[in-house]
Amino acid sequence: MAFTKMEGLGNSYIFINNFETQVPEERLPELAKLVSDKNFGIGSDGLIVVLPPTSPDHDFRFRIFNADGSEAEMCGNGMRCFARFVYDKGLTRKTRFPVQTLAGTIIPELFLGENGEVVAVKVDMGPPQLHSTKIPMTGPEREPVVDAELEAEGHRFVFTAVSMGNPHIVIFVDDVEAVNLAYWGPRLEHHPLFPRRTNVHFVQVQDSSHLLMRTWERGSGITLACGTGACAVLVAAHLKGLANRAATVHLPGGSLHVEWASDGHVYMTGPANYICEGRFLRSMTATLT
Amino acid sequence: MAFTKMEGLGNSYIFINNFETQVPEERLPELAKLVSDKNFGIGSDGLIVVLPPTSPDHDFRFRIFNADGSEAEMCGNGMRCFARFVYDKGLTRKTRFPVQTLAGTIIPELFLGENGEVVAVKVDMGPPQLHSTKIPMTGPEREPVVDAELEAEGHRFVFTAVSMGNPHIVIFVDDVEAVNLAYWGPRLEHHPLFPRRTNVHFVQVQDSSHLLMRTWERGSGITLACGTGACAVLVAAHLKGLANRAATVHLPGGSLHVEWASDGHVYMTGPANYICEGRFLRSMTATLT
Repeated sequence: MAFTKMEGLGNSYIFINNFETQVPEERLPELAKLVSDKNFGIGSDGLIVVLPPTSPDHDFRFRIFNADGSEAEMCGNGMRCFARFVYDKGLTRKTRFPVQTLAGTIIPELFLGENGEVVAVKVDMGPPQLHSTKIPMTGPEREPVVDAELEAEGHRFVFTAVSMGNPHIVIFVDDVEAVNLAYWGPRLEHHPLFPRRTNVHFVQVQDSSHLLMRTWERGSGITLACGTGACAVLVAAHLKGLANRAATVHLPGGSLHVEWASDGHVYMTGPANYICEGRFLRSMTATLT
Repeated sequence: MAFTKMEGLGNSYIFINNFETQVPEERLPELAKLVSDKNFGIGSDGLIVVLPPTSPDHDFRFRIFNADGSEAEMCGNGMRCFARFVYDKGLTRKTRFPVQTLAGTIIPELFLGENGEVVAVKVDMGPPQLHSTKIPMTGPEREPVVDAELEAEGHRFVFTAVSMGNPHIVIFVDDVEAVNLAYWGPRLEHHPLFPRRTNVHFVQVQDSSHLLMRTWERGSGITLACGTGACAVLVAAHLKGLANRAATVHLPGGSLHVEWASDGHVYMTGPANYICEGRFLRSMTATLT
């Protein structure tokens, strides 16, 4: 089975083009577990599959499976790689095309360098949701949720909450490296204020167009990068008057350019890199049946 | 750069044939870190490189680097894959050949199935060292170290110690699954009796030719398989009269056949499997200079 491994800010995925590979869709969760395993498979955060769309409004369908075989709705870092992959494979000539995902229609846009190589990919991440019930948060309703307070382990935190389809809280600090993320992350993720739990970001403002962030991802812990989180951080910083409508967001895995555009949507631009390409040699039959 | 990923009992390595690839040897530690990383590289326990020998007594030279770039002497699981790799690549027609390693000459032997495919690989792991100073252990000298005692955290352990070029202690228990390996492993590894620390194995004897083992590897913690450990376990079980001179040893990552032969050497036979093969696309220049 032909595969490509790509990464965006250190989020790594195995890509298969199912126009060719034709793995039965019901077997994709098992395949994701198999290829993602570092010991017996290739090793990755999950599997992303290029599929024919099931609606005439889309050019492709995107399915993403975590390393444990569970399906996710969307992943910004994965979508940038997806867009580069389908373009480089010659599956489209367009540099901007609608993709069907479980999170709705996503329209990535490719930026080409002088030699025609994809140098960056921009993804429309949709509009942020700012009402407290949309985060979702318990307690009195408000919109936007800026400089709200919560207490954890006797410590008071001031935070801003933003949903990008998933919940985020953003806490501004003077020194992001000084935060004990492994300690506070899980305690804030599971705070009773957030009935569906929350992603947690600590952010240091370098200037109005440079933000430094570290992330505790809901269900995953400390990660190298969180695309929706970078968008939430820019929105929160702008709401608080700490940043312009566009800024470079620095994450442990690399940098993203994020813009909260005048159409209300948040656009995220960043890299999509190849790691390796080849053939997966383990028998699916042996493992998947 | 062409690569192959293989595994033996879940120990996974990236293989490169440096007869072709010609990576400068001083760059191999950096390359090992790069390819082993799951986020930005392929993902593996390390890198194994096929090199021309520097002595006329060997057909190949084997170098193995851990994921952190440090060089190891040898790895039984890696050597089985190495032997299959050079044979399948057509670098030799022999099914038994001397390989130069930092642990001395290792002679793997390939077993072919009816269709000419490699079905198993046997590796001469050399003779066990049984004298207490060779383990090494502090305290009064003795040989062999069978049913010795130590105390850790107020708990008394009866153990047998065997060196296979590296130190091992073997503790026989009724139920290997019931052992709290994460708790006892580090406490026994660092016990003052072992000046160079020790690998720790808990073993359940199923019958005289079937042993069930779980391993705490020195410096690595709980692992799926330890080839030298499986050899030490068979030797310890035979010394105690619990096993024949040959037995199947069951590890979490799979099974090995181990024989303490009449020539005094321990021979380990097991699988060597392909995972994937392709081209590594990240620029070495960018990362390695």
